[in-house]
Amino acid sequence: MSKVHNFSAGPCILPKEVLEEASQSVLNFNNLDLSILEISHRSKDIIDVVSEAESLVKELLNVPDGYKVVFLQGGASLGFLMTAYNYMKLDGEAAYINTGTWSTKAIEAARGFGEVKVIGSSEDRNFTYIPKGLGVPMSANYLHYTSNNTIFGTQFHKVPVVRCPLICDMSSDIFSREIDVHLYDLIYAGAQKNMGPAGSTVYIVKESGLGKTKRDIPVMLDLQTHIKNESMYNTPPVYSIYVSLLTMRWIKKQGGVAEMGRRNEAKAHLLYHEIDHNPLFYGTVEDLDRSSMNATFKLHDESLSEEFNKMCADARIDGIKGHRSVGGYRASMYNALPIESVQALVDVMKEFAAKKG
Amino acid sequence: MSKVHNFSAGPCILPKEVLEEASQSVLNFNNLDLSILEISHRSKDIIDVVSEAESLVKELLNVPDGYKVVFLQGGASLGFLMTAYNYMKLDGEAAYINTGTWSTKAIEAARGFGEVKVIGSSEDRNFTYIPKGLGVPMSANYLHYTSNNTIFGTQFHKVPVVRCPLICDMSSDIFSREIDVHLYDLIYAGAQKNMGPAGSTVYIVKESGLGKTKRDIPVMLDLQTHIKNESMYNTPPVYSIYVSLLTMRWIKKQGGVAEMGRRNEAKAHLLYHEIDHNPLFYGTVEDLDRSSMNATFKLHDESLSEEFNKMCADARIDGIKGHRSVGGYRASMYNALPIESVQALVDVMKEFAAKKG
Repeated sequence: MSKVHNFSAGPCILPKEVLEEASQSVLNFNNLDLSILEISHRSKDIIDVVSEAESLVKELLNVPDGYKVVFLQGGASLGFLMTAYNYMKLDGEAAYINTGTWSTKAIEAARGFGEVKVIGSSEDRNFTYIPKGLGVPMSANYLHYTSNNTIFGTQFHKVPVVRCPLICDMSSDIFSREIDVHLYDLIYAGAQKNMGPAGSTVYIVKESGLGKTKRDIPVMLDLQTHIKNESMYNTPPVYSIYVSLLTMRWIKKQGGVAEMGRRNEAKAHLLYHEIDHNPLFYGTVEDLDRSSMNATFKLHDESLSEEFNKMCADARIDGIKGHRSVGGYRASMYNALPIESVQALVDVMKEFAAKKG
Repeated sequence: MSKVHNFSAGPCILPKEVLEEASQSVLNFNNLDLSILEISHRSKDIIDVVSEAESLVKELLNVPDGYKVVFLQGGASLGFLMTAYNYMKLDGEAAYINTGTWSTKAIEAARGFGEVKVIGSSEDRNFTYIPKGLGVPMSANYLHYTSNNTIFGTQFHKVPVVRCPLICDMSSDIFSREIDVHLYDLIYAGAQKNMGPAGSTVYIVKESGLGKTKRDIPVMLDLQTHIKNESMYNTPPVYSIYVSLLTMRWIKKQGGVAEMGRRNEAKAHLLYHEIDHNPLFYGTVEDLDRSSMNATFKLHDESLSEEFNKMCADARIDGIKGHRSVGGYRASMYNALPIESVQALVDVMKEFAAKKG
């Protein structure tokens, strides 16, 4: 039987060799005759996992000196709260760009900590574009944005230019392309897209940006706690970090983040080209702001959807149903998705157009 | 080669059949031709996992009507903070019992939310006993305690009698014995002892106890958020919940929590009997307060430790080094540890005593 083409929006496809090693380690990790699930996080073997994972984040993303990498829990949703706690000064203000669901939640989480200024929003057209040409007030303690919106299929292709500290939730495109870490005070990302399975969140933190809020921060939400304890203030989500490590080793072996970027561009080009040239479909996002991770598109005639869905199912194309707030289709093309899967989808789209032609 | 006897304090031993199924599902889950790590948490298969896990918690612990079960992230350490946010009233006060490290952290997390009254502490004798005969002020919003202290090896064998709401961190003994859930407003527990691997935390919440603090609670830290969203407010730690589900199915098949309690008593009796009768060793905790999960003991003559450690290593006895704040040895005997492993340790202790004769 052919392999499933896994376009799931996240948790999402991971490389086959990663899954094989991840499966084996549940039975016997490092030839210890023990499962990775049943050994202490304080054992040398697990400390080595966490430490290598931190190093690989630094290596793959060219993280400069002065930054620390920690793995925490709670996903980006806890990151929204930790951002406000760690960076919004007492009686301070912060700027946010609203590109949909996740930004909206980040904004909600920051209210009550200070003045939240939404300096740009694409809500007026159901988040189908990235707001541009924005001015950040000089008084902002930071600017927060979401680099890729998984639900609407938009992506920042330029980093906002600011004088204040810059904070970015990169949950759905970290490791998918090269980035300039030195531009940021904080980057955080839930693992469950290009990094690994759900359950851990990576934080890349400029150390000199911390400790400036004059705010009492609960110990568990204070980034300094976790930096000081090297991700081990409390029991870390060992397995999620471990599978993230395996995935990062895979990225490195493939040629690193630059190579991932090339592959992701090629996949995105293949699919968007078909969306733009197939008479039955149209893309839902403005051309310049399309995401290379999540392509959102619709049928001009929605009554054809049942037939198209059936053809996709027959071709074992999985996970392309659009999010309920957009409708239509969403094809997520994370790092581990081979271009052959995108080709399979394109082939079905072509076949469908020919049939209806 | 013989199996390793895994006395690790947590993350800790899990049943072999659980690990086998957990390993298989990383390759192919539910015959979907997809790994459990790479499918959406909103898919039917994963919703079913979370929902069955919630039901099994209720079934195994006889959770009465009016309680909800949710799986979150952040371990007990985030639970300390959520306790204060969700139960300490504005300008309120709360009572805590301090039995060591974890209680101490719970107490620290609550300060700043209101008046924290430590109504009992065993700190005076390095937490080697459980404080008793305590009076809880009528004005307390709740009493918080830790049912089992993993580090010092103490355990509450009676539930504190209170008129106020009762909150318990059961991270290291949940599912190890029968409990009366109706006595509690909140029980929470990190998964990584008797329930599953690190990365998820179960909360058993009396619904009528929530919403009484008049406090602004951040959305992510509000138990009502997670109850309303049935553990899916944000992406849950799928794999940790799944392995917890497999472990709970195993507990049920073995005869449930009552049977776990009988086995754990038998294991604890076997080891403590040896500790008390072997001339080379002594227990570090008061008899009545000894934990059936974690037995702490020392050599009278610490210069013998190297020789004893060598004998243990030869017998493949793993993970009995005591925590640095106690020293000596700690044998953790969670549900999945077979009595044969305890017997193996006892045999080595006997052999060592005979040798030193």
